[in-house]
Amino acid sequence: MEKPFLKETSFAMKMSSSHNQETVCVFGTGDFGKSLGNKMFQCGYSVVFGSRNPGLSGLHPKGIEVLSYAEAARRSDLIIVAVHREHYNFLTELAEELNGKTLVDVSNNLKINQYPESNAEYLAELVPGAKIVKAFNTISAWALQSGTLDASRQVFVCGDDKEAKQRVMDIGCTLGLTPMDQGSLKVAKEIENYPLQLFPMWKFPLYLSAALCIFYFVYCMLREVIYPYIHEKKDNTFFLAISIPNRMCPGVALNLLALVYLPGIIAAILQLYRGTKYSRFPNWLDHWMLCRKQLGLVALAFAFLHVMYTLVIPIRHYVRWKWSNSVISQIKTNKTNPFNVTNAWLSDSYLALGILGFFLFVLLGITSLPSVSNTVNWREFRFIQSKLGYLTLILCTAHTLMFGGKRFLSPSILRWYLPSIYVLSLIIPCMVLVLKFILLMPCFNQPLTRIRQGWERNLKGSKKAQLGNGNTGV
Amino acid sequence: MEKPFLKETSFAMKMSSSHNQETVCVFGTGDFGKSLGNKMFQCGYSVVFGSRNPGLSGLHPKGIEVLSYAEAARRSDLIIVAVHREHYNFLTELAEELNGKTLVDVSNNLKINQYPESNAEYLAELVPGAKIVKAFNTISAWALQSGTLDASRQVFVCGDDKEAKQRVMDIGCTLGLTPMDQGSLKVAKEIENYPLQLFPMWKFPLYLSAALCIFYFVYCMLREVIYPYIHEKKDNTFFLAISIPNRMCPGVALNLLALVYLPGIIAAILQLYRGTKYSRFPNWLDHWMLCRKQLGLVALAFAFLHVMYTLVIPIRHYVRWKWSNSVISQIKTNKTNPFNVTNAWLSDSYLALGILGFFLFVLLGITSLPSVSNTVNWREFRFIQSKLGYLTLILCTAHTLMFGGKRFLSPSILRWYLPSIYVLSLIIPCMVLVLKFILLMPCFNQPLTRIRQGWERNLKGSKKAQLGNGNTGV
Amino acid sequence: MEKPFLKETSFAMKMSSSHNQETVCVFGTGDFGKSLGNKMFQCGYSVVFGSRNPGLSGLHPKGIEVLSYAEAARRSDLIIVAVHREHYNFLTELAEELNGKTLVDVSNNLKINQYPESNAEYLAELVPGAKIVKAFNTISAWALQSGTLDASRQVFVCGDDKEAKQRVMDIGCTLGLTPMDQGSLKVAKEIENYPLQLFPMWKFPLYLSAALCIFYFVYCMLREVIYPYIHEKKDNTFFLAISIPNRMCPGVALNLLALVYLPGIIAAILQLYRGTKYSRFPNWLDHWMLCRKQLGLVALAFAFLHVMYTLVIPIRHYVRWKWSNSVISQIKTNKTNPFNVTNAWLSDSYLALGILGFFLFVLLGITSLPSVSNTVNWREFRFIQSKLGYLTLILCTAHTLMFGGKRFLSPSILRWYLPSIYVLSLIIPCMVLVLKFILLMPCFNQPLTRIRQGWERNLKGSKKAQLGNGNTGV
Repeated sequence: MEKPFLKETSFAMKMSSSHNQETVCVFGTGDFGKSLGNKMFQCGYSVVFGSRNPGLSGLHPKGIEVLSYAEAARRSDLIIVAVHREHYNFLTELAEELNGKTLVDVSNNLKINQYPESNAEYLAELVPGAKIVKAFNTISAWALQSGTLDASRQVFVCGDDKEAKQRVMDIGCTLGLTPMDQGSLKVAKEIENYPLQLFPMWKFPLYLSAALCIFYFVYCMLREVIYPYIHEKKDNTFFLAISIPNRMCPGVALNLLALVYLPGIIAAILQLYRGTKYSRFPNWLDHWMLCRKQLGLVALAFAFLHVMYTLVIPIRHYVRWKWSNSVISQIKTNKTNPFNVTNAWLSDSYLALGILGFFLFVLLGITSLPSVSNTVNWREFRFIQSKLGYLTLILCTAHTLMFGGKRFLSPSILRWYLPSIYVLSLIIPCMVLVLKFILLMPCFNQPLTRIRQGWERNLKGSKKAQLGNGNTGV
Repeated sequence: MEKPFLKETSFAMKMSSSHNQETVCVFGTGDFGKSLGNKMFQCGYSVVFGSRNPGLSGLHPKGIEVLSYAEAARRSDLIIVAVHREHYNFLTELAEELNGKTLVDVSNNLKINQYPESNAEYLAELVPGAKIVKAFNTISAWALQSGTLDASRQVFVCGDDKEAKQRVMDIGCTLGLTPMDQGSLKVAKEIENYPLQLFPMWKFPLYLSAALCIFYFVYCMLREVIYPYIHEKKDNTFFLAISIPNRMCPGVALNLLALVYLPGIIAAILQLYRGTKYSRFPNWLDHWMLCRKQLGLVALAFAFLHVMYTLVIPIRHYVRWKWSNSVISQIKTNKTNPFNVTNAWLSDSYLALGILGFFLFVLLGITSLPSVSNTVNWREFRFIQSKLGYLTLILCTAHTLMFGGKRFLSPSILRWYLPSIYVLSLIIPCMVLVLKFILLMPCFNQPLTRIRQGWERNLKGSKKAQLGNGNTGV
Repeated sequence: MEKPFLKETSFAMKMSSSHNQETVCVFGTGDFGKSLGNKMFQCGYSVVFGSRNPGLSGLHPKGIEVLSYAEAARRSDLIIVAVHREHYNFLTELAEELNGKTLVDVSNNLKINQYPESNAEYLAELVPGAKIVKAFNTISAWALQSGTLDASRQVFVCGDDKEAKQRVMDIGCTLGLTPMDQGSLKVAKEIENYPLQLFPMWKFPLYLSAALCIFYFVYCMLREVIYPYIHEKKDNTFFLAISIPNRMCPGVALNLLALVYLPGIIAAILQLYRGTKYSRFPNWLDHWMLCRKQLGLVALAFAFLHVMYTLVIPIRHYVRWKWSNSVISQIKTNKTNPFNVTNAWLSDSYLALGILGFFLFVLLGITSLPSVSNTVNWREFRFIQSKLGYLTLILCTAHTLMFGGKRFLSPSILRWYLPSIYVLSLIIPCMVLVLKFILLMPCFNQPLTRIRQGWERNLKGSKKAQLGNGNTGV
């Protein structure tokens, strides 16, 4: 009974295992073609190059042949087209040789959306008889040569022919890459744009924080540098280096952190209002929600800068001068400042709240590292990002309130009718915390929970039997 | 007997190679069913929903049909049951349609161990003719909808039929998830409990550190707040914000760090005593050893807080008042404190040891990140976690000893017979270091090494030929 | 033409789906053999042990048989040889039973390059009829037993028979490991050396930084401790704990950071000189370029220490004494130091530059975490590591220049003709920045860009049609 099984096995195995002896043809002996071809050769494939001038193509490892395009195409049914899009037209002449074969488009463009259709779709038009697969465009020639795949090993693959796509994905695996099936050839445009992107999800957070920075900086400069200069002729310009950044950073950090939680609150209000979670959110809200993680990390960066700026305070020349001056003037006037327990309490609790808030903030940052967030389940992830996140926001808001302390709304701190910057910084965080508190009241929280489990106000409870998997956080 | 099996398989497989054209049926149009179905549809599967009220099921993308359960079941041989366990009984009526087909149980419960048997096993009882696979319960509806799989992409899959399991795993891969085969259907209970867990490995470290915190806090409060209040009528309550936490944090951090290394030492003593490594450790020791990483990370968190609390010292109102007061009193009494080299040495070396200890501690923390520890081999991992870990413990213990400095055991620091808190903090770390030192002596280290390589005292060397692979760290 | 292909595929598929019922034989009941066998048994394989003394082999889970070598070998065509190399010779007697079967060599040595040929090749010589696969040697027995695979899950696999190799890789996958095909059996030596390595890529950076540290330390000691002792009889020995490390760390950090960017500049000059990117770099340059990441991380460690050493300055006993002494002497001499805006500017901008530089440095460190760098594309990775990296270098160099401030080259700071240490630290960074600036000028940058896209000066532009994939950074 075992025998036939074994026999068949060996047969099956020969097949699946012999794929490495496969011959792969690479059109084009440019930098990328060469690197990819050599890498496949190293990984056990038999490689043939096709070139316009087979004689001129430089050095290749022993065992790799360089032939004319037509000859090379005849050798293999999988052809990697490592040629610029502008030179694709020579392929039309090879229509016969390429018929039924798999053509892998590995090209990139210089600009996003450079051409109306993607290179891979253009190739499909030129060679209608071939199966086109888009792949390998996210990998760099240098990475293939040096073996240091520090940036992403992901190879996005798309194509209309499943089988051809699978073969290309197998090659990717053998080269030590991580192929990801992205679907049909229509996705090729996206895949071609991918390597040209520069942090698309970070754009909104970075622009937003840049705008906030400029506003805060100018505002503080007015109050702390220009006002004293005009009214008291004091040269405070050196405040620009540390004092003003150290007012700007905490303000920006606190506001960005509040803006991480604002879209969730807006979404909750929308869902309550609409009575369903199945209507789409407006686009701006969708986008805002998708870049909350980035917003939070930018906020963490500003919080980190704030911490550093604060900790160097006692080393600053200006501060040391001011402190020793205050001691000297106490002695000269023979008036010793008495110790004030309230001030000690305010100063210590303001610092303690800041430390705890920063600690939780760092914790949130660490858990948003991909390798850490991959090890937690949904319940844990939501516990951290939602519960701990709100705790961080509360601590940081309290830290700012304490910083104000007694002088919080005393009119004496107005300059040109401008309040201190930390008063402005508190507006959004306090608003978010109040709204969240309101939403937590049972009259809002209960319907919201039901809506997020899939309940719809307009459907008459006919769907209680359906599964809402619990994990329905926003 | 093999033949029909083969035939069906080959059939099934042909299908799976063109698997994306496969039709998948989803029972239940609730939140999770909808999300999963739509996601599969996007990934190229042909999807059919089964519903009690096919007409009432809300909007679906074009191309997705909603049919009655029976009709839908007839369309596909892979059915995803996205219905709450309480409503499973309708499936008994479909026994005929479901016979021989693959049923995927995706359900979760609300509480851990809510039912005596797992939902998947219950399903298997109800529909004995079907092949049951448990999967997808760790994924959230919202993650599927939004595409942001920040938390784990892992899909734990189990089932008794390998083939059915493989098909479900293939679907998981196509959806961009990471299926993990967990074995037979008996594991279903564990898989169902998984998404309900909240940091199970962190419980012991967190409870332990909470207990230590409370003890240290109360102890310090007695010595630093209540004692001065009773004896000198001094209001030191503001010490609660920073001074006392800054005595509590380093103590807790140091003790937790020592407790990371204590179980290894106990295990070594047990192994030496028993003369074998093959007897099981007591359960408490096993559990303790498995959460050493978490203990260490909690210790690092306290060390981080200690560093922050220490660095803000010169900014504190109280400290600034004290320092300037000391200068003023020096001038008033006309006695200038002379510079004391020994004190400078003590203060500087105490700080330097603390800095180096914290630096190594951070290094240990970084290397315990999953993506970092995945890039090192066993020898490197053990070098860091064992050698560097002990070095950290030594540095931190020395830092605490230095902090005591001259006044270490002077009776003048006793208050109500209570010694300073740092004296207590040193007990466990010193004990661990002494025991480790003893175990490193050749008379203990040599037999221990042999035991860890698989040698057993009671077996008479008959097994020298066997392989002990070197990597046998505890 | 399509038909036969599909048929074979379907065949292949069938097999792989029933692979878990496979019987696997393990030779040797030592620590590692036991652990691996039990793990495979847990994962659904049928496991048979082969042992010299089947009766003496200790406890095994129910369902696992322990037989003699010959009997066990007859049960399976995949045999894991978990025996020390020194005892391999018994396998020659089993030549008949092992003929045509797959032997998996899992052994490790005690030293790198212990034997002239790898254990796997030695095994292949002993049993010429078997297919040898090297695997599993990077996994530890303890990890298999406890299930905590904190260190790498990677299983490096090599072998000359593709089919056998594939089967072993499938087993690795089933055990939850990550098999990596490394090629033919010739690689076995490398794979056997791998678990014995201790941070090979870190050696050069660590030795280099150790040498720099010693140089800086001795240099500073001469200037700051020995010189004052000889000339002024001052006991500055306590400077060894913090003051001198805090001059050494920033110097080492800055120089290492500059050395991260120097090899790229040397490579660019070489490429410009040779007119091609296809000539190999000298070995030292290659190695230097491959460990740039490690160099940068060591530099970050020193920068972190520098930050900590700097932030504790105001807590130091010596510094507090000095500050209060300066206040006291101001009062006694009745000369109050006037406030100097230039000094405030210098001190603040020096600190601000340092903070920003350190912030970017930390950002570079975070993006070099494997899980982070895996989520960015090449363009993003190069933006961070190249653009942000140079910005960090510029900020840190400016920070050091500002630190010098007014007294930068004043001869009064020479002691024994030795300039201050920060002057020396600036040499390499300034050189790197100047060279980079020169290379950015169009007359050098344009040909360099073309060369990196695959252009060669000596080939006459015949290859314009070829693809250079854009991603060609050094």
